[in-house]
Amino acid sequence: MIKHALSVTRAQNFAGWYQEVISEADLAEESGVRGCMVIRPWGYGMWERIQKLMDAEIKAAGVENCYFPLFIPLSFFEKEADHVEGFAKEMAVVTHHRLVSDGNGKLIPDPGSKLEEPLVVRPTSETVIGAAMSRWVQSWRDLPLMVNQWANVVRWEMRTRMFLRTSEFLWQEGHTAHVDRADAMQETMRALEMYRAFAEGPLAMPVVAGEKPENERFPGAVATYSIEAMMQDGKALQAGTSHYLGTGFAEASGIKYQDKDGNQQFAHTTSWGVSTRMIGGVIMTHGDDDGLRCPPQIAPHQIVIIPMLRDNDEDEAVLAYCRSLRAELLALNVFGEPLRVLLDTKATKASNKRWAWVKKGAPIIVEVGPRDMNEGKAAVIRRDSLYKDDGKLATAFTPRTEFVASAPTLLADIQSNLYTEAKARLEANIHRNITDLAQHFAGDEAGFAGWVEVQWSRPTGAALDAIVGQLKALKITMRNSPIDAAPANGPCFFTGDPAVERILIGRTY
Amino acid sequence: MIKHALSVTRAQNFAGWYQEVISEADLAEESGVRGCMVIRPWGYGMWERIQKLMDAEIKAAGVENCYFPLFIPLSFFEKEADHVEGFAKEMAVVTHHRLVSDGNGKLIPDPGSKLEEPLVVRPTSETVIGAAMSRWVQSWRDLPLMVNQWANVVRWEMRTRMFLRTSEFLWQEGHTAHVDRADAMQETMRALEMYRAFAEGPLAMPVVAGEKPENERFPGAVATYSIEAMMQDGKALQAGTSHYLGTGFAEASGIKYQDKDGNQQFAHTTSWGVSTRMIGGVIMTHGDDDGLRCPPQIAPHQIVIIPMLRDNDEDEAVLAYCRSLRAELLALNVFGEPLRVLLDTKATKASNKRWAWVKKGAPIIVEVGPRDMNEGKAAVIRRDSLYKDDGKLATAFTPRTEFVASAPTLLADIQSNLYTEAKARLEANIHRNITDLAQHFAGDEAGFAGWVEVQWSRPTGAALDAIVGQLKALKITMRNSPIDAAPANGPCFFTGDPAVERILIGRTY
Repeated sequence: MIKHALSVTRAQNFAGWYQEVISEADLAEESGVRGCMVIRPWGYGMWERIQKLMDAEIKAAGVENCYFPLFIPLSFFEKEADHVEGFAKEMAVVTHHRLVSDGNGKLIPDPGSKLEEPLVVRPTSETVIGAAMSRWVQSWRDLPLMVNQWANVVRWEMRTRMFLRTSEFLWQEGHTAHVDRADAMQETMRALEMYRAFAEGPLAMPVVAGEKPENERFPGAVATYSIEAMMQDGKALQAGTSHYLGTGFAEASGIKYQDKDGNQQFAHTTSWGVSTRMIGGVIMTHGDDDGLRCPPQIAPHQIVIIPMLRDNDEDEAVLAYCRSLRAELLALNVFGEPLRVLLDTKATKASNKRWAWVKKGAPIIVEVGPRDMNEGKAAVIRRDSLYKDDGKLATAFTPRTEFVASAPTLLADIQSNLYTEAKARLEANIHRNITDLAQHFAGDEAGFAGWVEVQWSRPTGAALDAIVGQLKALKITMRNSPIDAAPANGPCFFTGDPAVERILIGRTY
Repeated sequence: MIKHALSVTRAQNFAGWYQEVISEADLAEESGVRGCMVIRPWGYGMWERIQKLMDAEIKAAGVENCYFPLFIPLSFFEKEADHVEGFAKEMAVVTHHRLVSDGNGKLIPDPGSKLEEPLVVRPTSETVIGAAMSRWVQSWRDLPLMVNQWANVVRWEMRTRMFLRTSEFLWQEGHTAHVDRADAMQETMRALEMYRAFAEGPLAMPVVAGEKPENERFPGAVATYSIEAMMQDGKALQAGTSHYLGTGFAEASGIKYQDKDGNQQFAHTTSWGVSTRMIGGVIMTHGDDDGLRCPPQIAPHQIVIIPMLRDNDEDEAVLAYCRSLRAELLALNVFGEPLRVLLDTKATKASNKRWAWVKKGAPIIVEVGPRDMNEGKAAVIRRDSLYKDDGKLATAFTPRTEFVASAPTLLADIQSNLYTEAKARLEANIHRNITDLAQHFAGDEAGFAGWVEVQWSRPTGAALDAIVGQLKALKITMRNSPIDAAPANGPCFFTGDPAVERILIGRTY
């Protein structure tokens, strides 16, 4: 039996395993500030990779980056009733701008510095960006107006979990204004497709893109679309959303334009975002009982070289061998970028280093000792297939030139293996012939029951409320109606009326 | 006489000119949120360039990026007395986490959601990063520990000015911990030199690096160093700081390590930062009466191609010519990166585009009409030398192949011209033989008096207070003691005691 690097396995306790990966892979930690985490270098390095790749996609679509204020006056929020209703319960509110001593050595907010109008720390920026758009848009020539910002946002969550649900998180939010519904919907779907391709590409994380049911819409949106990923415990993770906002926010903010006939019209707006939550999705999609397996496209270091030093006079030669190996690898490209290769020269034991990098999920770990050097070889460990059938480490002692020549292919292969494995799991765990949801999800507090796809008639009002309540009692929710699902061809699972589409149901994060 | 693109000249009203550049170059605007600005695409694009180049320097120094919480509990601040004293008067304080209706259709902070301990929106992160470092540092092997974050911070300023002093601003803050003073001082000076080289390189902005006098130190620091740039009105702009913090913050946060002899020691820490204020410095260093002149290294677009379309059947050929010109330019490198070239196809008049890009300061503007196309030429405008002696635009009708071949050199030349011009101005405006400060700075509310360098004895306590007060009455301050100034060799300007160093004095932003 394999003795794994983590103390908790996924099968034993998935939530505990998730926490252990985050801690052992140095991804993040509790900060001592309620609901806020510290993102450590390896975790932040993944976010930097995500930013770099996604930002290029955003710019390529003609969207320009800007920066808007952290603080939003309450009056901005009051303009859009559904929107404020959706966020009022979880907003951090700034009420004072100065501290004073209370006379007993404690600091308190200075009563004399109370703000006339409290400021909310942005939970999302439709309202403040809408105010700017109302200044920038005058004529149809100004449209489409497409901006994006990379920023921190705050939603005061009662129960937090690192990366998945924290009071403060990092994200990008795209905001666009268009002449009409058709143009805005095209942008809504473009962003959704960008997210799908990003998740399935750089993150190697298969997802289902689809429309959220009415009860799961973004507050104030006319339509909300999401990508949903399946975690290894069968639960769904909403990993990105794209909203068509109609003219509601434009009316609230006054985003008006003169059309070609000289008439004043309200713009149709959209917004779309992904966040550091994606990192939680990567962990729960690709992690195993030895820690994270980081997809090569977002790994801060794709190859880590560990010199096996013996504190003797061969050490310098081993280091030189490692340095030149690194230099050769750095000259190669994969996924259209130079390889990212670290030579780990920290003053810790080589075997500790190996397991530290296994837990962090470096895609390829290369160990070089005096014997490897003398034989012109390298000991290569692939993180996506760590063990042989006999439970021993599948280290490949490879001639150095052969390893260097194959390194880009190896990395591309690891990226595609991770995707293929996760894709097979996703497909195997979408159940299309379930007739009894209670039975299917019974006794499955830990998940692993996957998702159920049913046909439904998309009822609204009380009929929808009844369905939502029924699912809630089973601790499941509707995820989305896949945009590429087969057409409906039977009765609604819930109402018996003719179904109009298919919808996925499951437990969720 | 030249009719310039802006309505206000620098000589007429420098502050008004600055606001007009920001507005006309689409750099930023007031947001409607007190003291906070919206950074528009051209301004944010400059910040992205600054981030990209500076981040590479930071990483090359072995500093790792992380992310720390936006909110800091009051109790964290109370641990370091000088630090909290320095920031207490300008901190945004979060006191509630939910809104409710007041019953009259207005939202108010929900009294039931009052926080037990108020949270401060970070004005700087020494305290919260110190708490993390205390968890990460155990042994001398863990040192140096060097982290950085790119983040927004908030200092509640009473009088704000875009980019120079806003309630919220964007910056990077580096924080490092070391075994002893010598190692920490080395890092403090490395960061200072990184900033000097960055200002004088990519920003083409000459600066003086030096130590701030005691009264201008960062709250809680043992020593503060700065780079000071001279704006065109002769005022100083502190454009970056690096602090040696001694063991004060380590003692407050408990950053302790076991040394090689097994003894517990406090770490010596540093912090260093630059912000979006740098953009204000670039504007006031390089701007002219036609707007911004953006240094090519940080220009979001280095070359802008404007097709002169006539709404006739030659248009498509002109566009094709422009597209292939752009493609040729994109294949070239300058400053170690591919050229950044925009083909501006917006539906506005070509002459309006020209002046819009002049005001934004695109380093090279290329106009192409049917005649240029037929002659195989391009009309090239250099933003650093816009006019001929006769006051007409210095447009150079250049054979296309010649222009393409020379484009990288042209850009490098513009970058170096901007630096040379600003450097000459800086040197001409440091006065070393002034005997009467009041007379020198008299009647100079608008600046233009430059800086005065004097020798001083570096007094402390009441003697220093007296000097600070005397300068304050003249609306001037001590900027820094240049690290590469000639040794002192005479009496202190203020006290008559033997001087120990030289110090710069001037008006400041």
